[in-house]
Amino acid sequence: MTRPKETPLAQSLPATVPFVGPEAIERATGRVFKARLGANESVFGPSPKVLDAIRSSAPEAWMYGDPESHDLRHALAASLGIAPGEVVVGEGIDGLLGYVVRLYVGPGDVVVTSDGAYPTFNYHVAGFGGQLVKVPYVDDREDPDSLIAAAHQHGAKLVYFANPDNPMGSWHDAGAVTALLDGLPEGCLLVLDEAYVEFAPEGAVPVIDVSDPRVIRMRTFSKAYGLAGMRVGYAFGEAEVIRGFEKIRNHFGLSRVSQAAALAALEDAGWVDVVRAKVETARSRIAEIATGQGLTPLPSATNFVTIDCGQDATFAKAVLEGLVARGVFVRMPFAAPGNRCIRISAGPSQDLDLLAEMLPLALAEAQGG
Amino acid sequence: MTRPKETPLAQSLPATVPFVGPEAIERATGRVFKARLGANESVFGPSPKVLDAIRSSAPEAWMYGDPESHDLRHALAASLGIAPGEVVVGEGIDGLLGYVVRLYVGPGDVVVTSDGAYPTFNYHVAGFGGQLVKVPYVDDREDPDSLIAAAHQHGAKLVYFANPDNPMGSWHDAGAVTALLDGLPEGCLLVLDEAYVEFAPEGAVPVIDVSDPRVIRMRTFSKAYGLAGMRVGYAFGEAEVIRGFEKIRNHFGLSRVSQAAALAALEDAGWVDVVRAKVETARSRIAEIATGQGLTPLPSATNFVTIDCGQDATFAKAVLEGLVARGVFVRMPFAAPGNRCIRISAGPSQDLDLLAEMLPLALAEAQGG
Repeated sequence: MTRPKETPLAQSLPATVPFVGPEAIERATGRVFKARLGANESVFGPSPKVLDAIRSSAPEAWMYGDPESHDLRHALAASLGIAPGEVVVGEGIDGLLGYVVRLYVGPGDVVVTSDGAYPTFNYHVAGFGGQLVKVPYVDDREDPDSLIAAAHQHGAKLVYFANPDNPMGSWHDAGAVTALLDGLPEGCLLVLDEAYVEFAPEGAVPVIDVSDPRVIRMRTFSKAYGLAGMRVGYAFGEAEVIRGFEKIRNHFGLSRVSQAAALAALEDAGWVDVVRAKVETARSRIAEIATGQGLTPLPSATNFVTIDCGQDATFAKAVLEGLVARGVFVRMPFAAPGNRCIRISAGPSQDLDLLAEMLPLALAEAQGG
Repeated sequence: MTRPKETPLAQSLPATVPFVGPEAIERATGRVFKARLGANESVFGPSPKVLDAIRSSAPEAWMYGDPESHDLRHALAASLGIAPGEVVVGEGIDGLLGYVVRLYVGPGDVVVTSDGAYPTFNYHVAGFGGQLVKVPYVDDREDPDSLIAAAHQHGAKLVYFANPDNPMGSWHDAGAVTALLDGLPEGCLLVLDEAYVEFAPEGAVPVIDVSDPRVIRMRTFSKAYGLAGMRVGYAFGEAEVIRGFEKIRNHFGLSRVSQAAALAALEDAGWVDVVRAKVETARSRIAEIATGQGLTPLPSATNFVTIDCGQDATFAKAVLEGLVARGVFVRMPFAAPGNRCIRISAGPSQDLDLLAEMLPLALAEAQGG
């Protein structure tokens, strides 16, 4: 019996997951995490009104979600001051990144990103046969100059840039982002990942005319809005760029309940202010805990703090494992030099109390090991 | 300014949606449907326990769903009597069909289906550059012999077969399905869409060894379980075929709340019996209503009844439009000869009362027009 043969591209791909879920670690260790601070979820949750929306939309679960996500898309457009045709809603930024790669990247096409930037984007690029060119972070920030140079040198179809950045928590001011955009070669599309935009400091969010076809911006309800589990992201940009998604997306891919939740979240904008304040408090506390142990918290424009453990990746990994073994789920950057750090999401005080208790133990163990 | 250029394949695709949502019709007409009987959703809804599960999992919405859908996948495997590695969970069958096409179909590869069968599958085939070969329905059923012949003639990578069938509601017995499988050329993968399997009559569901790499079966929580709005489908088959999905799927694409809902649905299997009984009652009523108007209901192994309106597609479309204009959302098959029919989903008695009231008016209008 001859097995069906995948395409040569599919055959060449590894079976991989960009991130192992905390649940997999829990199953492997047989212990449930006491503090879930590793995935930059919002431990502060969605607003009470959003919880109400989820509960009250449950009886609608028998109906497919509106494939146009009309109400949500229109509300997003209104809040962004753009036209509904300039925004597309999808299964998280992850899903939208997959679509944009599929639209623009064929086998051999070059895509430029930073070494250590979002691995799920890289997963999609590999998945469609693109050739990834990575440039190093500089001073723990993505480096626009290197991105521009690499894009020119390799004739990149896409350039990925996250602002604020994950996993380093760093950011660039608006002028640097628009300079990046202006510096890219003709015909190159900038994928501007703004998952953490709600936490960005003033002056870090560029004003870019939505009719500019050189950039697509992606945002999400997974971070500030506390809805990672509902899987709603959106992308906005020039109408023709956005229209591309209509050619390939899974039109009925978005849960009806998720659409209702996201819409309620958008309508309860005050919650983001509440979360922002809680995140700021948590970031200070995390920084204080780190400093107290002789570690260096990096400045953050996100809902997490990346902590320089002061030694190499092996040491950082040992610290991380010490925390994980003690019930504190955290993650770390995947590539040098960021991988001298661990990354800790903002959380409520009881979670950070546990961090404060366990970090010295994890450190001692890592130092002794 | 040079616009970014999509890949040649993406450029060649139309912006299209396989199905226009009822919400779009409601927005266009300014009227909300009084009976939603067009999308083969389960108007009977999910079980009360599932509603509870959705509501009680709302506070978990801040957490990403388990990317492995471990609990749901293990429960499915147990209920199917297979290994967890032999099942993959995804964003509805629609999402899984997209993945399987992506895994097996490259530009120019031939895929065989029936003319008038599920258009979303065709959308994905076109989206990955596959070449569709369509064979006609015979006696309102997909025709295994033609599918086999076309697969051999064109060296098909995939053959699509739905049993029971949408949009005709027809079915083949298990022997015909295994004969189809045995008749396909070496190396061809049979995509067996079993979205309506819970409504299949005895003897229509083949026993196929899960280790057989020639077939992948797809099922869903959208139909009998009443969870179309939660977007959970699953595929099962030989472990190596299933492992392929790990290379390309959106690992974090499945809502946490949706996973909880689907798991609760699976655990409340009695609900499917309840729904099955309600569907049977509804099908009889729909058939009676149709017959009363001189139309011919086709036998159905699904949660809908396809009604032969006795004339051509123009007439059927006029009947459909007459119903839609009167607040009854229904759909019709897209291709001849099925498009002499309209398709009506099972619903509760008040919905069918409305159908009974409006069908004569719609018919009169269509006959007079």
